[in-house]
Amino acid sequence: MEIGRFDRDLDRLFDPRSIAVVGASNVLGKWGLTMSMNIIGGGYDGRLYMVNPHEKSILGHPTYPTLSAIEEPVDVAIVAIPAKKVMAVLEEAIAKGIMNLVVVSSNFSEVSGEGTELELELARRANAGGVTIVGPNTMGLYSASSSLCAVGTFVYPLKGHVGFISQSGNLGVQLLEWGEARGVGFSRFVGSGNEANTGMAEFLDYLGSDPETEAIALYMEGLEDGRRFLEVARRVTRSKPVIVLKGGRGKQGSRAALSHSGSLAGENDLFEGLFEQAGIVTTDTSEEFIDLVTAFSSLPVPRGGKVAIVTMGGGWGVVAADACDREGVELATLPQGLLDELDTFLPQFWSHGNPVDLVGGLRRANHFRAIDAVTRSESVDMVILMGAMLGKQFFMHNLVYTVVRPLYRMLTHNICRLPAFLLSFWKGFSRSVSSRNEANPEGSAGINPAEAWEWTDSALISHLENLIAETGKPIIAVAMSEQQKSTSSRLEMHGILTTPTPERAVYAAAKLSRYRDYLFGLQSGASLK
Amino acid sequence: MEIGRFDRDLDRLFDPRSIAVVGASNVLGKWGLTMSMNIIGGGYDGRLYMVNPHEKSILGHPTYPTLSAIEEPVDVAIVAIPAKKVMAVLEEAIAKGIMNLVVVSSNFSEVSGEGTELELELARRANAGGVTIVGPNTMGLYSASSSLCAVGTFVYPLKGHVGFISQSGNLGVQLLEWGEARGVGFSRFVGSGNEANTGMAEFLDYLGSDPETEAIALYMEGLEDGRRFLEVARRVTRSKPVIVLKGGRGKQGSRAALSHSGSLAGENDLFEGLFEQAGIVTTDTSEEFIDLVTAFSSLPVPRGGKVAIVTMGGGWGVVAADACDREGVELATLPQGLLDELDTFLPQFWSHGNPVDLVGGLRRANHFRAIDAVTRSESVDMVILMGAMLGKQFFMHNLVYTVVRPLYRMLTHNICRLPAFLLSFWKGFSRSVSSRNEANPEGSAGINPAEAWEWTDSALISHLENLIAETGKPIIAVAMSEQQKSTSSRLEMHGILTTPTPERAVYAAAKLSRYRDYLFGLQSGASLK
Repeated sequence: MEIGRFDRDLDRLFDPRSIAVVGASNVLGKWGLTMSMNIIGGGYDGRLYMVNPHEKSILGHPTYPTLSAIEEPVDVAIVAIPAKKVMAVLEEAIAKGIMNLVVVSSNFSEVSGEGTELELELARRANAGGVTIVGPNTMGLYSASSSLCAVGTFVYPLKGHVGFISQSGNLGVQLLEWGEARGVGFSRFVGSGNEANTGMAEFLDYLGSDPETEAIALYMEGLEDGRRFLEVARRVTRSKPVIVLKGGRGKQGSRAALSHSGSLAGENDLFEGLFEQAGIVTTDTSEEFIDLVTAFSSLPVPRGGKVAIVTMGGGWGVVAADACDREGVELATLPQGLLDELDTFLPQFWSHGNPVDLVGGLRRANHFRAIDAVTRSESVDMVILMGAMLGKQFFMHNLVYTVVRPLYRMLTHNICRLPAFLLSFWKGFSRSVSSRNEANPEGSAGINPAEAWEWTDSALISHLENLIAETGKPIIAVAMSEQQKSTSSRLEMHGILTTPTPERAVYAAAKLSRYRDYLFGLQSGASLK
Repeated sequence: MEIGRFDRDLDRLFDPRSIAVVGASNVLGKWGLTMSMNIIGGGYDGRLYMVNPHEKSILGHPTYPTLSAIEEPVDVAIVAIPAKKVMAVLEEAIAKGIMNLVVVSSNFSEVSGEGTELELELARRANAGGVTIVGPNTMGLYSASSSLCAVGTFVYPLKGHVGFISQSGNLGVQLLEWGEARGVGFSRFVGSGNEANTGMAEFLDYLGSDPETEAIALYMEGLEDGRRFLEVARRVTRSKPVIVLKGGRGKQGSRAALSHSGSLAGENDLFEGLFEQAGIVTTDTSEEFIDLVTAFSSLPVPRGGKVAIVTMGGGWGVVAADACDREGVELATLPQGLLDELDTFLPQFWSHGNPVDLVGGLRRANHFRAIDAVTRSESVDMVILMGAMLGKQFFMHNLVYTVVRPLYRMLTHNICRLPAFLLSFWKGFSRSVSSRNEANPEGSAGINPAEAWEWTDSALISHLENLIAETGKPIIAVAMSEQQKSTSSRLEMHGILTTPTPERAVYAAAKLSRYRDYLFGLQSGASLK
């Protein structure tokens, strides 16, 4: 709106020693309650003051009738009162020397002409007084280092190293929640709301030099000052990947953005050009957005763009290769030495190329020999794994599933056959176990339960972790089946990107490789393709 | 390979009175065990014969040394023995009058020149003998009407009305599993494998007139006879939607397909043209594939292409509108009468347009008044709902989450404040409950627990079900948060498509509307755009 140029103290915004909630409330569903609840529940350890002239106590805290009534210094005031009363609070804040105001209240420029006037007035006064306003119409902020969860909805992000600036509160908190499920931890989150006097560029600038933040996510609908943003972003992307989801790109989308945040989005080509020049990684959908945030916050930047696909089924290899064609990802040509090596232990009818189709052989040790050999090859920069998520849990699940259903059937329909069924099953099972050390050139004959037993989820995870650390190459695991979910979510907790389809893995690989190209091209002055 | 033109008895393939498993086994991991286990566990009620010359009993069934040794008639023989021995079994089958062979064995044309010879020989003999071969190199088949789960992996599909033909076994069974999670039931599944003498066209022809099948899914890498396929598909799509995922489209993808199924995929434009002419719905990724199979098997075909978006957050509305731009979906213009109606009960600062942003108001009854009014409008053909999945469970979850975390914090850090905390919280809660019937023009002030309580998952589901039935318009629900998962999976069990992001909902709407255009254009001779 009217972005201010004054000395900010964003360190104190994200690590306040004391917070006042103006408009704190006991009533369910009110922002003043949710915010207070989340601040307490999130574990904020600084001093917390509740401001409400009508209540004696809020959530067990004594109340103050006004901000000025608090005698101690306040670093951040969170404001959740009707729009028209905010200006008075700003005056109090300036008088009290409070440098950061988080204005949750809505009914400003996102709504009406009157609201726009009000917001402009607020911005001018704040600029003059040197007060950073987050919002108005913000969903709040989160900061891991202070355990500060001043967010207006019930989400408790994982602590980590992604910084996230969002021009949509709902979209913002949803990404935080998705992050929780994907093992993505956040250092800071800020819903920039209507950006009365503080916008994307100011926050990006801060996160760029914030030691807690290693990767940055942006949801953007519009920009106040593209030139300033570009200048900041160019600097930041040299050391930290920045991923953007841009809202309001198409005709209908920009109309919706205008009505949502008041952003004159449009000018899609301008934004595309801006992102490209700044080395910002772009995404088209919210799903791609969380995938890339997961990828860039967990995986190393690859040294090149050549991908190897290791799969347990040919059809999935085809689908993954198609995705590579679509995303402009090059499949690595496997050198003869590697083919020869794989030939020594893979079933003879393996694909002899990339995708490496393990053709359903069930020996786990061989899968991992293949994965290791492929990942270590000089010709390969990134690896996409399908069918590697088959840990002990998968085996147990299948074993139980396999036995229980026919057993139940026997019990209910052919009970007289049950003893014979158990006897034959036991004989077969013993035979699998006793043949555990036999060589098995055809590969597909029989599972080895003893071996399967060794591949616990943690064995599998630490194997992949070590391989990534050793080679410095990104490995993306694809876990398609429900049975792989427990393994896959544990994988993500260990910072290994796991996608439910190969196409999404390929997409992430494509973007990793383009960011690598950007960094690589910086020396020669090229920009992100 | 050498598709046969003879009288098939596919009724008996999908509803056999008796099955023989040639190569049945007790050994874990062998196809002959998995198949037998799944047939028993799946609940097949016909006669089951185990053929194995070395074992006396398999899973409690007596064995026969050869197929010929079975005295009773056999409708389907499932063959899981080394490739070189399959011809002999075919001869036995012909002699015994078995019209359907499901050949699981691999090492045929997908591997080597020798295997190709073998397969060609097999096809010729089968054609002459009038035997339908499923495969070789097939993952098997499933048929709901016979509870026949002759599939080589541990999946028990839901019974339903989707027919599914897949040229990849792994991809096929994965879709069956995804279907289970998404509430999609299958009537038939067949992995067509190498298609020695029976391919896509033959199975599609059968499913087209199969009364058990209402929608058809295809995973295709190549086609033996495009002309025949087109002729069949054109007929089928008039009454049943056919959705295809084509593998082997790009350069790298077709190379992978060649190595997988031996399909000379390529010629992508030819296939695109074929699908367009035939009115087949195409998809680009496996995720889109399962989304569309879910959509087309559960939702009515819309009467037009205009979409209304109802959302609880502006940013999500923007993202959804962008997706509409990308997918060529038109947002409905809401008539003045509808805007006026919504004005009577929505918070005053609602978006007054499409997307309909309910701006976070928490009154459930008003959400549903809005949803009803929008869905019933003459200007709207399809509805995408974001934030409607907030049933009682969501409320309970949030309430618990809200209270438990700060409570825990109090207990462990400020126990002396606990009584005061509980007292203030209780006061606020009582106030919310007592104000349940108060008018609330600003909308965002306070949740009404009593009202939230009434919106159980089932109330919500039956409301939407009735609305779809009443209006004949597809409603697609978007359930983004983990907390909505229980509701969303129940929704899908009731046949209401639910996607985790709005973009995926828009994609499904786009494809539904294009299929509608195809059907509509048939009269004037137009084809699917």
